[in-house]
Amino acid sequence: MSNPLDIYIENNKERFLNELIELLKFPSVSSLSKHKGDMDNCAEWLRNHLKTIGLNNCKVYPTDLHPAVYGEWLGAEGKPTLLVYGHYDVQPVDPLNLWDSPPFEPVIKDDKIYARGAVDDKGQFWANIKAIEAVLSEKGELPVNVKVILEGEEEIGSPSLPKFMTEHQDLLKCDLIAVSDSPMFDYNVPTICYGLRGLAYVEIYLNGPSKDLHSGSFGGVLANPIEVLAKMIAQLKDDNGRIAIPGFYDKVLELTPQERGNFASLPYDEQKYLDVVGSPELFGEKGYTTSERTWVRPTLDPNGIIGGFTGEGAKTVIPSQASCKISMRLVPDQDPEEIAGLFEDFVRKICPPTVKMELIRHHGGMPYLIPLDSPVIKMTAKALKRGFGKDPVYVREGGSIPIVAAFKKILGADTVLLPLGLPDENAHSPNENFYLPNFFHGIKSVVYFFEEMAEGYR
Amino acid sequence: MSNPLDIYIENNKERFLNELIELLKFPSVSSLSKHKGDMDNCAEWLRNHLKTIGLNNCKVYPTDLHPAVYGEWLGAEGKPTLLVYGHYDVQPVDPLNLWDSPPFEPVIKDDKIYARGAVDDKGQFWANIKAIEAVLSEKGELPVNVKVILEGEEEIGSPSLPKFMTEHQDLLKCDLIAVSDSPMFDYNVPTICYGLRGLAYVEIYLNGPSKDLHSGSFGGVLANPIEVLAKMIAQLKDDNGRIAIPGFYDKVLELTPQERGNFASLPYDEQKYLDVVGSPELFGEKGYTTSERTWVRPTLDPNGIIGGFTGEGAKTVIPSQASCKISMRLVPDQDPEEIAGLFEDFVRKICPPTVKMELIRHHGGMPYLIPLDSPVIKMTAKALKRGFGKDPVYVREGGSIPIVAAFKKILGADTVLLPLGLPDENAHSPNENFYLPNFFHGIKSVVYFFEEMAEGYR
Repeated sequence: MSNPLDIYIENNKERFLNELIELLKFPSVSSLSKHKGDMDNCAEWLRNHLKTIGLNNCKVYPTDLHPAVYGEWLGAEGKPTLLVYGHYDVQPVDPLNLWDSPPFEPVIKDDKIYARGAVDDKGQFWANIKAIEAVLSEKGELPVNVKVILEGEEEIGSPSLPKFMTEHQDLLKCDLIAVSDSPMFDYNVPTICYGLRGLAYVEIYLNGPSKDLHSGSFGGVLANPIEVLAKMIAQLKDDNGRIAIPGFYDKVLELTPQERGNFASLPYDEQKYLDVVGSPELFGEKGYTTSERTWVRPTLDPNGIIGGFTGEGAKTVIPSQASCKISMRLVPDQDPEEIAGLFEDFVRKICPPTVKMELIRHHGGMPYLIPLDSPVIKMTAKALKRGFGKDPVYVREGGSIPIVAAFKKILGADTVLLPLGLPDENAHSPNENFYLPNFFHGIKSVVYFFEEMAEGYR
Repeated sequence: MSNPLDIYIENNKERFLNELIELLKFPSVSSLSKHKGDMDNCAEWLRNHLKTIGLNNCKVYPTDLHPAVYGEWLGAEGKPTLLVYGHYDVQPVDPLNLWDSPPFEPVIKDDKIYARGAVDDKGQFWANIKAIEAVLSEKGELPVNVKVILEGEEEIGSPSLPKFMTEHQDLLKCDLIAVSDSPMFDYNVPTICYGLRGLAYVEIYLNGPSKDLHSGSFGGVLANPIEVLAKMIAQLKDDNGRIAIPGFYDKVLELTPQERGNFASLPYDEQKYLDVVGSPELFGEKGYTTSERTWVRPTLDPNGIIGGFTGEGAKTVIPSQASCKISMRLVPDQDPEEIAGLFEDFVRKICPPTVKMELIRHHGGMPYLIPLDSPVIKMTAKALKRGFGKDPVYVREGGSIPIVAAFKKILGADTVLLPLGLPDENAHSPNENFYLPNFFHGIKSVVYFFEEMAEGYR
């Protein structure tokens, strides 16, 4: 350990951890109005801390609800600017009786710190802050320009963030955004997540008779909206799990042999996977593995269906209406609007004239992908390898992270995900925790990320 | 009008009507406990009236809830026995503000009497009682033996009647049952309804993952219970509206050329029919008319479906469960248990191993049919022709009348339906009414029915 930065981190471990404990004690639950004061106190505490470690222009920015905290260090002339994002708000703690220790009284046990917000997201963004401190303290300067934005509304869907970004575009202007707010593939497996799926979401309403009718008097004479809806849903996919909407796959980027190889090399236990989800069998698009189906292939799923009599027992009605919510997870280069349009064209074509159809489009989201061979991925890989002492794995994510699309749209910058969490750390659940080796490896990784970015960005 | 019975009926019209008005004033709502006293008073009033017109053994029989009223005249030695059924309970009156006059203050306007219970069923069974009175009064005897049973729980599903019948089988022993509690085909169209559909009712539950899952993390990897259910429902019928369950039609009696001719001769206006139901188009089994599809052909209809997120807006879940209630209207000689079994065999065969299926069978009911060439039908036709002055039409009914099956099962006797109501008389709705010409034609028809039964039964 000849590197003075490593020595600094090693010497300050205990203080870093004590500071994290102090941060975790704020019950900063964004969804509960009774914690409004705690939110403000936490934001103020963070502003003071950013100032203490040497950031400039540190400020608490009020929004329509919970404030955002900002700080910056812009002394690296001619070098790129990194925006570090995190969120200091946390999920509610219910059910409280399932916690082994009080959620806002952090406890360390077997290399893990237990508290609400430990992994989501206080522990993860704290590693980023401590990396900034380590470099500034040890070297007096950062190799790149760094801005920090910590929001207080992530757990309630970041309602104020887009407006805040739009109103402060100059303040937040950057070349790249770094987010530590997602899980690594597994313990001791540094992970690069380079793609997210997008989303198109539609809702179909089929109307038959003008009111529920007696199935004795009218059964056999009219199209039943539930039956028509079922026949339409049945036509959306073929027996191989492939979506039957014409043009749906036209813009899907096929996965490369490199990606296929990467995913195949990851440990995967089907029985363990089934135990987690509880389904009797797996089922998906023919020709693809579970990882590929989850990360690289688009999907179509009914999310909810309702029609007719759904109470207890038997009632003999021909329903007036049946409706279904259907979402499609999209992959590059599918466009949510275009896909929703293809969906609508198709269902309008297969809907018989015996019912009237109404279609609603809900808000969608763009898929996201950073090419595996891009400089950002390469420098992230180097940083993680140096921070964790081993090569990272390359994964994509089946869900969406809405702020990533918002960053791209409003700030025009890509986002690199630096996951420091683990899949079993109970984010949003009782006994949330954070694996401390990842905290310290994370600090080092972010330090190295600054260095690699100074060298290798664009 | 040389017939002394016709003269008696003509001379007593006003009194008959005043008695009906008195009967309609009882707010005998069986579903509301606050009307318990009114129920008892109405039953007592009926018992006294049956006694007054010359019936014997008149008695109010208590049950677990509302009493039944009985009376008999058994002086026609060697002649068959007819059991006249009616119900003195009525539906609730809500919404009261939609009534043009108070529901329990009968008003006569344009040949119709308006009150709750006017057609369902007080006016209709009163025509039967007045026919008994007319014959007894004018001739001193009836040409057949007659028993009268008036129940007080029809509008709540006759919960006490099967037990009452089982416990009083000797009292109620009869050769035939007459029920006036259904609509004629149209104004001035005396109607014989000689068949009812039966019912099989099942409920399917499909279980996939053990809880609702995030469609981003798990979309594409698991069978979606809503999608599987939709594919199963889609396989239950072919594109011609024919049910695809093997063996389903094996015991269905094909309609005869005579029936087809009868139904085809009935007035039918498709646009008027569509206006009533509100569907954009009709749809049903290929090769059959609307009447045939409603009365003679079996059906299969989803009555309710639910699964996943059904609240407002968008939620991206793979549902853990989806379920559907499905009923089948049956025709002679289909058996509800056998059909439910064929249904279960089929869905178990088409259900994929990717979900777990649970199947519930609800209570079913037998279909009912009196052969068109049977003596009962012939004598009913003669009686209606004499009572209404024109030939009756022959229809079947798409729904079930559960007491008819109960009569057959417990008392071993067939039921003849003598409909005196009309389809537009607002049974169960505000401004319920009864067309008075049908009341008086009905009295005559029942008088002639006694005569025809004495001549032509068996």
